[in-house]
Amino acid sequence: MAKEQQKRTDINELGEFGLIDHLTKNTTLTNLSSKKGIGDDAAVIDNKDYLTVVSTDALVEGIHFDLMYTPLKHLGYKAVVVNISDIYAMNATPKQITVSIALSNRFSVESLEELYSGINLACEKYNVDLIGGDTTSSPKGLYISITAIGQGKKEKLCYRDGAKEGDIICVTGSLGGAYLGLQLLEREKQVFLANPDMKPELDEHKFLVERQLKPEARRDMIRAFEKNNLVPTSMIDISDGLASELFHICKQSKVGAYIEESGVPIHPDAQMIAIDFGMDPVTCALSGGEDYELLFTIDPSDIDKVKYLPDIYIMGDIVAAADGVKLHAIGGKIHTITAQGWNHFNK
Amino acid sequence: MAKEQQKRTDINELGEFGLIDHLTKNTTLTNLSSKKGIGDDAAVIDNKDYLTVVSTDALVEGIHFDLMYTPLKHLGYKAVVVNISDIYAMNATPKQITVSIALSNRFSVESLEELYSGINLACEKYNVDLIGGDTTSSPKGLYISITAIGQGKKEKLCYRDGAKEGDIICVTGSLGGAYLGLQLLEREKQVFLANPDMKPELDEHKFLVERQLKPEARRDMIRAFEKNNLVPTSMIDISDGLASELFHICKQSKVGAYIEESGVPIHPDAQMIAIDFGMDPVTCALSGGEDYELLFTIDPSDIDKVKYLPDIYIMGDIVAAADGVKLHAIGGKIHTITAQGWNHFNK
Repeated sequence: MAKEQQKRTDINELGEFGLIDHLTKNTTLTNLSSKKGIGDDAAVIDNKDYLTVVSTDALVEGIHFDLMYTPLKHLGYKAVVVNISDIYAMNATPKQITVSIALSNRFSVESLEELYSGINLACEKYNVDLIGGDTTSSPKGLYISITAIGQGKKEKLCYRDGAKEGDIICVTGSLGGAYLGLQLLEREKQVFLANPDMKPELDEHKFLVERQLKPEARRDMIRAFEKNNLVPTSMIDISDGLASELFHICKQSKVGAYIEESGVPIHPDAQMIAIDFGMDPVTCALSGGEDYELLFTIDPSDIDKVKYLPDIYIMGDIVAAADGVKLHAIGGKIHTITAQGWNHFNK
Repeated sequence: MAKEQQKRTDINELGEFGLIDHLTKNTTLTNLSSKKGIGDDAAVIDNKDYLTVVSTDALVEGIHFDLMYTPLKHLGYKAVVVNISDIYAMNATPKQITVSIALSNRFSVESLEELYSGINLACEKYNVDLIGGDTTSSPKGLYISITAIGQGKKEKLCYRDGAKEGDIICVTGSLGGAYLGLQLLEREKQVFLANPDMKPELDEHKFLVERQLKPEARRDMIRAFEKNNLVPTSMIDISDGLASELFHICKQSKVGAYIEESGVPIHPDAQMIAIDFGMDPVTCALSGGEDYELLFTIDPSDIDKVKYLPDIYIMGDIVAAADGVKLHAIGGKIHTITAQGWNHFNK
């Protein structure tokens, strides 16, 4: 009997966010303690006195990292940081993690020790406890999935859907660095593959390479908010690039945004290396990803609370949804930002 | 310059439990809310009114499942069940899960829908909310890592380290079924590979095949305990085989155990198929694994509370650590059970 033809839709047709939307559109929450499900940096569980915040993120060899230039200790560190960054993005404090690792037998016990030394280092630095997990075999490659659990106060938690017209858009730190660090590592890898006797030239690019290999989460900002009694109206961490994260906030808050090119913070090293690679620094900053900075909105009445805080940059305003998501370029032109990141080449 | 010789220890030298012990031996808990870390079915977070219980488990293609005979819907269902089984094993109630999936582009959107339909079905059946996760690419294969979060009352939570001399050892349900189901599926796979026109002969083995492909967690038991006001002194779920789980309890409780071969519950189908495969049914029951039944100990004064409950079997007693972990065979002989499972061939 001939097998019936089955419909086959390629996963790439939907993209990551489309796929998650598609698969979870019928997901409903039935337990009273489930306060917030899929669709923010982290899920929220109601524990009466305060909220428990839960986030899961996976790093996959060959997709998220290349062991040719990623030391395992850095990888363990980064795997923790990218997860607790999601907890901070809720304006909460990470407290515990569980680590699920699948690895092939090409890894030795010593290499796993390296990975765990990075995991433990990040736990120490951010006062997080490793409370459990699973270590299992994989036929090929290394998979690390971490779940981070944090605590937050009900009245202080920040979601993606709280931005409103007139709010001010802020961003921490500098952008594009992690992406350009990756470009540098990829370039040196190609040089090495072509001629294994060549020594990598990365010492002078320490800042950018470290942004890629050993990022930090912005705990200092969450503490500064607390100290200055500031509660952002919405917040998200920048893992996929500022443009993409701004779209998440706008979509979920049902608003638009207007940002100034001059307000996009770019580190001088990133600026220089972008030009070196023939790339536009602003595009790298908007679409690069993996910077793990915080993008947030504040009520205009809170402007004085952020104005004098170091490392926070005011980028623009939240506008009506009908006005779209736009960038005011330094040259004066207005560009529509697309979900995939702003296409600077249309200038 | 010659590279220095680095020590390389193969992961298999330590085994799964040895590896986890080795990697986490320096792990300490620093947060007040971290009540219990690595080393039980689940970690425990103190939330004042009650405890939050967290468990993580991964299923890896080619290691834990073979998609040649595992329908994706069943796989999604099983991935949830094996995780919430860990929460029940703490005498707690699962409330939420996060799902982290990595998959290659050989999977279509429709196949992911199948997987999620199984995940959702298990969530519905066990009243658990899917609150978050991560879906990402993998260069090869399918990886599913689930974190389950539950609630338990402080005075009712059951750990692995609470068994004491004189306690009675009980087990739920029947053992060995999942393992023999796997043997049947593997046999039919070989038949199919040799001759693709052969039809699989599995209909008459529905019970065993379902034990392997679509296991259930013992929520009914946790409810029966609650109803009968019974709190086991220790408890564990049977994922790696009864012998292995009994060793965990004995090691962590610093006790020994004495079980009766006649007390090991084996389903008649499992009995029959074991003999069919030339295997010893008791060995299958003790070392088979994946049954997701509960192994627990009770204070002797609670014996009447379990005596008349269906599907609970009294297997033996907890003894002093010096007395070891032993099986009293039906023939009268005493066998020492080893951590890898009892070696029946030494009879």
